[in-house]
Amino acid sequence: MKQARLVLVRHGQSVYNKENLFTGWTDVALSPQGEKEAQDVGRLLKKNGIYPDICFTSWLKRAIHTAQIALRELEWEHIDSLRSYKLNERHYGAWQGQNKSKVLQEYGEQQFLAVRRGYDVPPPPLDENDSRVVWRDAKYATFERALLPISESLKDTKKRVVEYFQETIQKELKKDKTVFVSAHGNSLRALVMHLEQISEEDVVKLEIPTGEIIVYTFTTEIQIDKKEILLG
Amino acid sequence: MKQARLVLVRHGQSVYNKENLFTGWTDVALSPQGEKEAQDVGRLLKKNGIYPDICFTSWLKRAIHTAQIALRELEWEHIDSLRSYKLNERHYGAWQGQNKSKVLQEYGEQQFLAVRRGYDVPPPPLDENDSRVVWRDAKYATFERALLPISESLKDTKKRVVEYFQETIQKELKKDKTVFVSAHGNSLRALVMHLEQISEEDVVKLEIPTGEIIVYTFTTEIQIDKKEILLG
Repeated sequence: MKQARLVLVRHGQSVYNKENLFTGWTDVALSPQGEKEAQDVGRLLKKNGIYPDICFTSWLKRAIHTAQIALRELEWEHIDSLRSYKLNERHYGAWQGQNKSKVLQEYGEQQFLAVRRGYDVPPPPLDENDSRVVWRDAKYATFERALLPISESLKDTKKRVVEYFQETIQKELKKDKTVFVSAHGNSLRALVMHLEQISEEDVVKLEIPTGEIIVYTFTTEIQIDKKEILLG
Repeated sequence: MKQARLVLVRHGQSVYNKENLFTGWTDVALSPQGEKEAQDVGRLLKKNGIYPDICFTSWLKRAIHTAQIALRELEWEHIDSLRSYKLNERHYGAWQGQNKSKVLQEYGEQQFLAVRRGYDVPPPPLDENDSRVVWRDAKYATFERALLPISESLKDTKKRVVEYFQETIQKELKKDKTVFVSAHGNSLRALVMHLEQISEEDVVKLEIPTGEIIVYTFTTEIQIDKKEILLG
């Protein structure tokens, strides 16, 4: 029997990850190592015989390129690719583009950890006049400003990710499709938290490592049947 | 007023084009020159301020990669990409992978030209036991064999291309979207023939050159308002 499968991949190393900077919605490219990691994802899918029916990505190029490189490696590029800003990484507010060690020094360990690990603590927001606010980017120009974040807690990220999952991705699972999602550390944490009903306390310990592939198999009732972690 | 626009691009040079071989549904990659041509498409779109709302491609990687490279160059990669085998190149039957000069010699000028330029003359079909028949390819494995070609005339190609245009692409035009289509010499000839109501006699003279972008602007009634050719 064909069963619905949800295949989750965190993008490979970006040029900001490499330089230890907070990234969030900053649209940076993969590093050469990140491109190699994306190829490894394709090889791991092939080794496990996983050929998706449809691909979802965020609007950020590090997730888009990870999917493109992985599907090219899999020789399976003909599937539709749907993209949404709702799968974007958590918005890291004024910390975007800042060095993590410098932010830790400036804000102190308590606030640093509260923002990074707490469920509902956003980083300081971007100033509305900051050149980094997302409504200055033509891709987001048609949105109402109120819909676009200037900072997000994990709770804020989870709200939009789960909305998108329920409105769009779940429709494909209901058709027993194999759905490939290429996204980000925190947008995937938010999704896994929803899928596995992880509590606000326990989500602190949840990490989505790069280079792994998480595969959920569902029953027809959209209940998880099993979870597998594929390793290279 | 926002008007519907249809932006047609023929993929850049493939490794088969370069070697003067008939390609058809053979899934060959772009040559380095073809990749450069795809970048030029992106630059030309940017120069003309054309930022598509949605992208359509065939299932063949030379068209998929042309779109990916062009959109990357345009810095506009977040749009949805829908793909269909109905936008594939005309199926070139037993001539696929054959040298054009050798085929001309073997079949004589009359049959060669009848197939290449005639409207309803297919090349000799692939034998059903031939390793090149498309149902041996996992991507097409779920189709009924009768739906998959082993050779096509331009008329056959036009039927599926126009079907897809009317079922799918036209819905986006009705929403006044700018639609980007990356496809092939003959699948685009078929589409242009339909859009401009070109006769079976006149289509012989119709060529879709690589490196050009054809932009149709539509009235709300899905009637062509104007046609522009963008040149690098």
